Amino acid sequence: MRSSGRTPDQMRPVRFTRHYTCHAEGSVLVEFGNTKVLCTATVEDRVPPFLKGKGQGWVTAEYGMLPRSTNTRVQREAAKGKQSGRTMEIQRLIGRALRAVVDLEALGEKQITLDCDVIQADGGTRTASISGAYVALQDAMTSLIKQGKLKKNPIYGQVASVSVGIYQGAPVLDLDYVEDSSAETDMNIIMNDAGQFIELQGTAEGHAFRREELDAMLLLANKGIIEIMEAQNRALAE
Amino acid sequence: MRSSGRTPDQMRPVRFTRHYTCHAEGSVLVEFGNTKVLCTATVEDRVPPFLKGKGQGWVTAEYGMLPRSTNTRVQREAAKGKQSGRTMEIQRLIGRALRAVVDLEALGEKQITLDCDVIQADGGTRTASISGAYVALQDAMTSLIKQGKLKKNPIYGQVASVSVGIYQGAPVLDLDYVEDSSAETDMNIIMNDAGQFIELQGTAEGHAFRREELDAMLLLANKGIIEIMEAQNRALAE
Amino acid sequence: MRSSGRTPDQMRPVRFTRHYTCHAEGSVLVEFGNTKVLCTATVEDRVPPFLKGKGQGWVTAEYGMLPRSTNTRVQREAAKGKQSGRTMEIQRLIGRALRAVVDLEALGEKQITLDCDVIQADGGTRTASISGAYVALQDAMTSLIKQGKLKKNPIYGQVASVSVGIYQGAPVLDLDYVEDSSAETDMNIIMNDAGQFIELQGTAEGHAFRREELDAMLLLANKGIIEIMEAQNRALAE
Amino acid sequence: MRSSGRTPDQMRPVRFTRHYTCHAEGSVLVEFGNTKVLCTATVEDRVPPFLKGKGQGWVTAEYGMLPRSTNTRVQREAAKGKQSGRTMEIQRLIGRALRAVVDLEALGEKQITLDCDVIQADGGTRTASISGAYVALQDAMTSLIKQGKLKKNPIYGQVASVSVGIYQGAPVLDLDYVEDSSAETDMNIIMNDAGQFIELQGTAEGHAFRREELDAMLLLANKGIIEIMEAQNRALAE
Amino acid sequence: MRSSGRTPDQMRPVRFTRHYTCHAEGSVLVEFGNTKVLCTATVEDRVPPFLKGKGQGWVTAEYGMLPRSTNTRVQREAAKGKQSGRTMEIQRLIGRALRAVVDLEALGEKQITLDCDVIQADGGTRTASISGAYVALQDAMTSLIKQGKLKKNPIYGQVASVSVGIYQGAPVLDLDYVEDSSAETDMNIIMNDAGQFIELQGTAEGHAFRREELDAMLLLANKGIIEIMEAQNRALAE
Amino acid sequence: MRSSGRTPDQMRPVRFTRHYTCHAEGSVLVEFGNTKVLCTATVEDRVPPFLKGKGQGWVTAEYGMLPRSTNTRVQREAAKGKQSGRTMEIQRLIGRALRAVVDLEALGEKQITLDCDVIQADGGTRTASISGAYVALQDAMTSLIKQGKLKKNPIYGQVASVSVGIYQGAPVLDLDYVEDSSAETDMNIIMNDAGQFIELQGTAEGHAFRREELDAMLLLANKGIIEIMEAQNRALAE
Repeated sequence: MRSSGRTPDQMRPVRFTRHYTCHAEGSVLVEFGNTKVLCTATVEDRVPPFLKGKGQGWVTAEYGMLPRSTNTRVQREAAKGKQSGRTMEIQRLIGRALRAVVDLEALGEKQITLDCDVIQADGGTRTASISGAYVALQDAMTSLIKQGKLKKNPIYGQVASVSVGIYQGAPVLDLDYVEDSSAETDMNIIMNDAGQFIELQGTAEGHAFRREELDAMLLLANKGIIEIMEAQNRALAE
Repeated sequence: MRSSGRTPDQMRPVRFTRHYTCHAEGSVLVEFGNTKVLCTATVEDRVPPFLKGKGQGWVTAEYGMLPRSTNTRVQREAAKGKQSGRTMEIQRLIGRALRAVVDLEALGEKQITLDCDVIQADGGTRTASISGAYVALQDAMTSLIKQGKLKKNPIYGQVASVSVGIYQGAPVLDLDYVEDSSAETDMNIIMNDAGQFIELQGTAEGHAFRREELDAMLLLANKGIIEIMEAQNRALAE
Repeated sequence: MRSSGRTPDQMRPVRFTRHYTCHAEGSVLVEFGNTKVLCTATVEDRVPPFLKGKGQGWVTAEYGMLPRSTNTRVQREAAKGKQSGRTMEIQRLIGRALRAVVDLEALGEKQITLDCDVIQADGGTRTASISGAYVALQDAMTSLIKQGKLKKNPIYGQVASVSVGIYQGAPVLDLDYVEDSSAETDMNIIMNDAGQFIELQGTAEGHAFRREELDAMLLLANKGIIEIMEAQNRALAE
Repeated sequence: MRSSGRTPDQMRPVRFTRHYTCHAEGSVLVEFGNTKVLCTATVEDRVPPFLKGKGQGWVTAEYGMLPRSTNTRVQREAAKGKQSGRTMEIQRLIGRALRAVVDLEALGEKQITLDCDVIQADGGTRTASISGAYVALQDAMTSLIKQGKLKKNPIYGQVASVSVGIYQGAPVLDLDYVEDSSAETDMNIIMNDAGQFIELQGTAEGHAFRREELDAMLLLANKGIIEIMEAQNRALAE
Repeated sequence: MRSSGRTPDQMRPVRFTRHYTCHAEGSVLVEFGNTKVLCTATVEDRVPPFLKGKGQGWVTAEYGMLPRSTNTRVQREAAKGKQSGRTMEIQRLIGRALRAVVDLEALGEKQITLDCDVIQADGGTRTASISGAYVALQDAMTSLIKQGKLKKNPIYGQVASVSVGIYQGAPVLDLDYVEDSSAETDMNIIMNDAGQFIELQGTAEGHAFRREELDAMLLLANKGIIEIMEAQNRALAE
Repeated sequence: MRSSGRTPDQMRPVRFTRHYTCHAEGSVLVEFGNTKVLCTATVEDRVPPFLKGKGQGWVTAEYGMLPRSTNTRVQREAAKGKQSGRTMEIQRLIGRALRAVVDLEALGEKQITLDCDVIQADGGTRTASISGAYVALQDAMTSLIKQGKLKKNPIYGQVASVSVGIYQGAPVLDLDYVEDSSAETDMNIIMNDAGQFIELQGTAEGHAFRREELDAMLLLANKGIIEIMEAQNRALAE
């Protein structure tokens, strides 16, 4: 039924390539099938103005798509002179997701910026970004510990994200672009390693969804999150 | 337990005042307790560029807060020269919610803009906006029918929205500002009159939420949505 | 002769509703007939950079129109990304008018921002804004005195504003939108309670105006200003 | 009493140099003493969108100051990315003043843009701009007639502008920068050659002004306008 | 002498990886040592406004750096809301270089946009961009020919670019970041396969350079260009 | 052959008028034939943020064209809200050129801004700007010495700039607008008084240029630079 030949509860191949570029404290290329996002973590010895002198750090995110990461070219946001509402929504989401597993006081007065830049898009760029940013953030923390700037890792939980949806009447896991464009309902789910929800955003595109459809999607998401977390852990163990 | 003295499943008083201003095709002041939003619906004989010549209409929304609608003054977005990420997120959400109950082909090549301007804020401005915009949209459709520009109303469902959350460990309905600022989890739910979900956005602020907490919040939301819809219908019947 | 049935020297009903919203130090809905402007006064413990350390305060204003306050929707300035020349002109005018009756040294290092947001427009929004902002400013000063942050009120004069014009060849007072759009000459006058001019801006729209027409308009303005000041005082006495 | 040694009713030397630059249809350097403004008139075969197909033309103005035209450098507006409120006010004023003497229907579907760029500032740049723009506009009309694009000159009146004020308690004509900065009242007056008012903007800087002060200033302005118009006519006769 | 151990006339390893991403008509990862730039070519059936109806096409370029492509994070231009002067200079340069080898009339009314996005920076990003964009452009032309949209390839020459400089008193080829930052003179040279100059930009950073230093640099550039062109041709032959 | 009747190696008349305006520390009108640029030098007791506390000064430049300095009006950059890529390129070039002859440490913590505003354009505005800015900068330094703010002049070299090109197959010096628009190759050269290159930018517009063409152009440039420097010195000697 799925054009990719996947079963409804089957993820695309998920891969995390660490140290993808050489300058950042964390640099991970995350792939969910053909979706490829470069996630870098940058550590800076400063905090945003609203946190000055409060003895805590900050984790934030920025998101962008290369103009031709998509099937038809999208205008460069730097050239347009502003970020779209979609971009802002996504980067705010990534930032919240990662902050949900970091002890900002333990981090101390530092800012970590997670840049998620989409090299190639095929659906699920925001869920891939969150999942990849987690790995980059871990690498950045490790580098801070190695340099003696942190005693212990302030990350207290694991975070991953996946999309689920109702496609041609049936619940499916990890939608690719073709499915995403014609799904009746699209839902992005962010969970931690205790199986709890960090964020959950469901949107009925075609028609509204019923409670039992929601339940079915949550079940699929749970399965996907577990598989992504295993892939994250494998990558971090290398 | 709630500072307002409300029970956990109690809404604030909900009121819709139609014809609040005189120029718009629909003009509704919606109040959820101390939260007051002016929702106007403007009909224009044009469609956005991406819909030119496709024989269908469009429903969109814009959102703004008066600078001193809040406890401390927020900078005027017109003066800053750009809308914040939060503003864009909210206005995109309102637009999607209303489009979910309108037959855009039946509307024909017209655009209806729902302007939701917060006069006074006390939590839940986006859910009040959606609920009020529905009433303004109904009035705009009625005016189009009266002028002979539409034969029948292209709205095929009712839409309302409410927030729920986990506050001091317990699920509560319709959070005010004080509750919202310290809630552990905050969730905005948009439903139609068939009891189905149009959109659902839950965010763990303090700690992640469990599946049984989600279930409890969905139950509360359902109750709130029914009450808001009754108030919408009473207002429209006047 | 006037479509409203008013005599040439007749004001529209003028009304000031104090405490219109709950958060601001001063919050006044001013109505000149169908023109309705919400004027709020916000006190902040800071001054603009050019006044740092000079031991004096500042009074400034911002102006905006809700998109559908007018007969046809005007684009939201926050969405356009800039304020129009008209908006800037008006908010600079309101600021100057109010500063003309405040002892800024007696105010001390505080800034008071007068936000004038047009809820419904029917001509004369700038004159209504100035007249309403005066009442909001008085309430803000009273609140500062109550909190012990000021010993005495630094306002040393009363200020009000009204429009006059030449409409169908005759001088008229307080033009509504219909009159304003087709007036040959339009003049905004700001005066204090000593009958002196604070600002006076006259523009020939159709043809230039003669000295005797100017004199007739000034006479009408004087009458209007006195009535507005009485209404301001009645509202403040409540 | 005046630092320049002028009597209260004495203008600075006024000079109009036509054909100051070679590309524009009209190009005039206007000098009011040390204030020097380059006014160019550009004719284009297009009208702004709101006039498309209405069979009439448009006259508009833009104003700018070279960064070091003033005593201390002002930031370049092109670098800041926006025009100040003051700039917009002034260019709107210049445009209105010139349109007040042009028959836009007789002009036909053309736009004339008057660019007023301040080369050196010493007070009164807006009044010099208006007075110089009139001469540039005349030259542009003459060039259109010579090219056979117009049968007769659509300018039906002469326009000039001058400032007056109350300085050290006394009414004075044509304020220079030193006087302007410390004047109690500052008034810009635009008149036509029938002695009628096109625009009149008076602002109390220090304290409000009385009716008799207004009368005295109007008298001085009248004298100045006559002298400027003579200088305009002499320049145009050359 | 060079920290990399290279001889003065030695290029870094140059590599072109075609089909690096899947959506673009041409997609090439170019590497000059550690400098990695993704160059994509997008074909669109439109031309910029100034070419409408002139029967010719256009080739243009845009350039960007991922925020953490560099040693310390640079602010995202999309977030700042404008492209820097450096970015604009570089993308204008890339566009000119590629247009210099394309017959725009033979291309017909199409626009090809070359997006050069720096994934990792180590000096020479603009010269790598130009060299890589040439390969991407060739692939785009081939795809147009395959689709029958072009009869023959409108590219009539080969283009490549390299930097040369005076580093520690000696002329060197293909500067990396360390050399670039402390070079006394830095020169970017763009040549075609006839050994002629398309563009040449030399800047004295430390002290001015003499004619014989210029001659030595031109000689080195010539050698580098030949090697890059061989690598381009090898890649295109695969 | 040249429409101006000049021989290939003949400069247009070059003139520097010092003290052109009265406020700036240096103010020079430079003319290369019909190209007229006003160059002012402004001294400020501050440095840009990246130089704070480093004990050195800064020299920077800004460039602008009056809207009707050209044959057809160009839109005002202040009105468009941003500077074009061309403007940024030119002002960065002017700044680099002048910094190349100033000992920034000897200047001390001061910033000198060179504003180059084109009053009338006929080709070569950037080379005229650089040549004129040098004279304005000298005047600013002299004024600092007179005021006792500098002991000795921190300018250690002379700088001038000229354009050369290949026009109708032959190398020519100092292109005017007509030549510039149809030149096959256009090159801007900046040199110091030791005959060394500070910057050199050559662009093939029509077809690529050969090494012997480059040599011929450099020879012409050398001749032009010497003549401009003589004119600079004559002006400074007055």
